[in-house]
Amino acid sequence: MSEPITPEDVQRAQAVFEPLTQSLRELIDVTIRSRVDESEVRRAHALIQQAGEILGSRLDPVPFGVRTATDGRTLPWGNVAIGMRNAIAPPLRVDRDEAGQRAVADLVLGAAYEGPPGLVHGGVCALILDHLLGATAHRPDRPAFTGTLTLRYVAPTPLGRLRVEAWVEREDGGKTFAEGNLLDSQGRVTVHATGIFIRPVAKT
Amino acid sequence: MSEPITPEDVQRAQAVFEPLTQSLRELIDVTIRSRVDESEVRRAHALIQQAGEILGSRLDPVPFGVRTATDGRTLPWGNVAIGMRNAIAPPLRVDRDEAGQRAVADLVLGAAYEGPPGLVHGGVCALILDHLLGATAHRPDRPAFTGTLTLRYVAPTPLGRLRVEAWVEREDGGKTFAEGNLLDSQGRVTVHATGIFIRPVAKT
Repeated sequence: MSEPITPEDVQRAQAVFEPLTQSLRELIDVTIRSRVDESEVRRAHALIQQAGEILGSRLDPVPFGVRTATDGRTLPWGNVAIGMRNAIAPPLRVDRDEAGQRAVADLVLGAAYEGPPGLVHGGVCALILDHLLGATAHRPDRPAFTGTLTLRYVAPTPLGRLRVEAWVEREDGGKTFAEGNLLDSQGRVTVHATGIFIRPVAKT
Repeated sequence: MSEPITPEDVQRAQAVFEPLTQSLRELIDVTIRSRVDESEVRRAHALIQQAGEILGSRLDPVPFGVRTATDGRTLPWGNVAIGMRNAIAPPLRVDRDEAGQRAVADLVLGAAYEGPPGLVHGGVCALILDHLLGATAHRPDRPAFTGTLTLRYVAPTPLGRLRVEAWVEREDGGKTFAEGNLLDSQGRVTVHATGIFIRPVAKT
């Protein structure tokens, strides 16, 4: 994007888009669970179309990407796992230790993340673990890409409150060997993951 | 659910919820890419809240699960990968061969599935492959659960038109050893996956 994004722009965008995106997450959920009659579904549909027309009247032709504010902050607002403006993202709020060797996130997954009845889809578990393991390999301005990822499903993951944690096992040049677990609300491991993440060589 | 779902109920629900969910997918996309000013974002937000109140006025207390119509059809409408009523789902439309040994799906992923700029999030690739490999292991009334899944990312996956395909390598009792690929619009493999899927022993 050519226009500079000031800290004030960031604050204003967050003030309006964060609550809208949260309402959209709730709308995704009630669309799945609603038992209202057809005339009400049609009425809701018309409102959704109106909202889409308003927001769609002036659009970036490209995906959001990762933009940088003038104060150096990166804004991954479209990201499917953590994006503030992406209603698919739970969103993950990743806490990292100072050395960047550990990452953890608490989250609640509702009806919209279901696979088998009452359970989180195995692929959503994979998405969350991929993101957390990858987060241990990210360095400022040097995102890491997944090289390989292996998931072992040791128990069903119930919908509801979950925790995900990941840590660096070892590093070898631009390669990070990471491990992590998805845990249910009782702290039991449901999925274990190992992965290799690669930071492309910086351009000089 | 105690109330029987007739084929007419299925048809009526599809007629109203399928287009609403499609509009919701478009709304997720434009929420990420919109450049309208704050007053318009607020106006759209109010409409989204109204839609949520209408649909949320009568709710199932539980996730959708997999319901069965009186004609025997299963309705995985809340599923995060394939659900007709789940706006997170692209949705995948999986074609299987008659023997159930191969599964394929064509899909288009837009801004809402982004990880690195312009690319599909590695975790979304994992979700899609998990679902397709799992689909080769499903049998009527006997869903399969992911045991292990290994993903090898061989090239970046660009947003846009993609194909995913999976096949059974071998079966051993209730275990299915499956493989699959995610391919870009040029037919190049971007992610290769292998997995073991387990059908729990049927209750007698």
